Amino acid sequence: MSNDHSFSIEEKKGVYRAILERRDIRAQFVDTPVPDEVVRRLLKAAHHAPSVGFMQPWNFLIVRDPAVKEEVHLAFERAHARSAAMFPPEKREKYKKFKLEGIREAPVNLLITCDRTRTGPVVIGRTVQPEMDLYSTVCAVQNLWLAARAEGLGVGWVSIVEEQDLQEIFSLPEHVRIIAYLCVGYVSHFPDRPELEKAGWLPRLELDELIYYEQWGRRWEAG
Amino acid sequence: MSNDHSFSIEEKKGVYRAILERRDIRAQFVDTPVPDEVVRRLLKAAHHAPSVGFMQPWNFLIVRDPAVKEEVHLAFERAHARSAAMFPPEKREKYKKFKLEGIREAPVNLLITCDRTRTGPVVIGRTVQPEMDLYSTVCAVQNLWLAARAEGLGVGWVSIVEEQDLQEIFSLPEHVRIIAYLCVGYVSHFPDRPELEKAGWLPRLELDELIYYEQWGRRWEAG
Repeated sequence: MSNDHSFSIEEKKGVYRAILERRDIRAQFVDTPVPDEVVRRLLKAAHHAPSVGFMQPWNFLIVRDPAVKEEVHLAFERAHARSAAMFPPEKREKYKKFKLEGIREAPVNLLITCDRTRTGPVVIGRTVQPEMDLYSTVCAVQNLWLAARAEGLGVGWVSIVEEQDLQEIFSLPEHVRIIAYLCVGYVSHFPDRPELEKAGWLPRLELDELIYYEQWGRRWEAG
Repeated sequence: MSNDHSFSIEEKKGVYRAILERRDIRAQFVDTPVPDEVVRRLLKAAHHAPSVGFMQPWNFLIVRDPAVKEEVHLAFERAHARSAAMFPPEKREKYKKFKLEGIREAPVNLLITCDRTRTGPVVIGRTVQPEMDLYSTVCAVQNLWLAARAEGLGVGWVSIVEEQDLQEIFSLPEHVRIIAYLCVGYVSHFPDRPELEKAGWLPRLELDELIYYEQWGRRWEAG
């Protein structure tokens, strides 16, 4: 299928490769430095995400200081210990063995935030769905993640950390929400499948089982 | 900058083109049919988004029936009228003139949802940030949007509609949240910049103004 606006075969392949070969990286970071101009390219990709009402609610906080990463890592460890206790006993030991972050190993950490007051109280497209600014910022994270894959950089999203702890570590104002804390760096390799899939924690779902047609629950009989 | 895992120049160009040339499409849809196999490629891209704890919480509901689109459009019109009233009088008339959706013109509409109960009550990475499943689903939306751009397909995200209305139209179960209602189709052209920027509603922010270093508010003096 081609048309006037579709990409060349190689360009299209790049887009699908980024999507299919992107991984959440925790254990494969190497200490090759990440130059500022590469970081800037990733942030430019993030900044060109769709944003509700062209609000561009994001900020990008770059962390390279090992002492700051150490503070974040301590916050992770507290949240991780609390999290382990939530799993049923038969799953807890397996959970504890997973490597779930690369905060100290990744040369660059990135905090991506959403300023909920940017451009004022009434925003086009955010009138009846007030969460749209948060979602715009998530789109920025995904743009960055895919650009990073194309650059050969791994990204890991650390979600086992209390927002309040990060708010304090980085002195964030109250109207600014944290969307993502990312670890970024070059990698020894990209695993061929998600690590939780490889470990047998959960299987990849069948795409066809997830698609409905016209109504919830009605199967799609595609040609 | 190159390394063992980075893409070829053409593939990288594809990724950055998709990111920079993606637009929110409302007014440019043409009625060229969108084949099922193209829809399936977009949904495969969405399905390969990162998901917290490999939860894959999404479903994809394809809408092609004009009668269903009409119902959604009526729901949009109600939300749009309520939204207009929220703008200060000096902005209201301009707001009302924007074309903000292409529900009936787009050959395909897509409802993307998040099943908050999928894989059970305790999910790796969602223990202290319960919103992570919603964010995973937003990543799926962005994957789909970029794949669509590479295929020459436009996508518009309709957020001016009450979630409750969509819940009723599509008979969604209560534990399923709506993340995005998308309009998808081939286009006459992709605008060179976001429409709200072109219309002078808001300017593109300077990237450098949005970047901080180590602490909130501290400028990044990049090399």
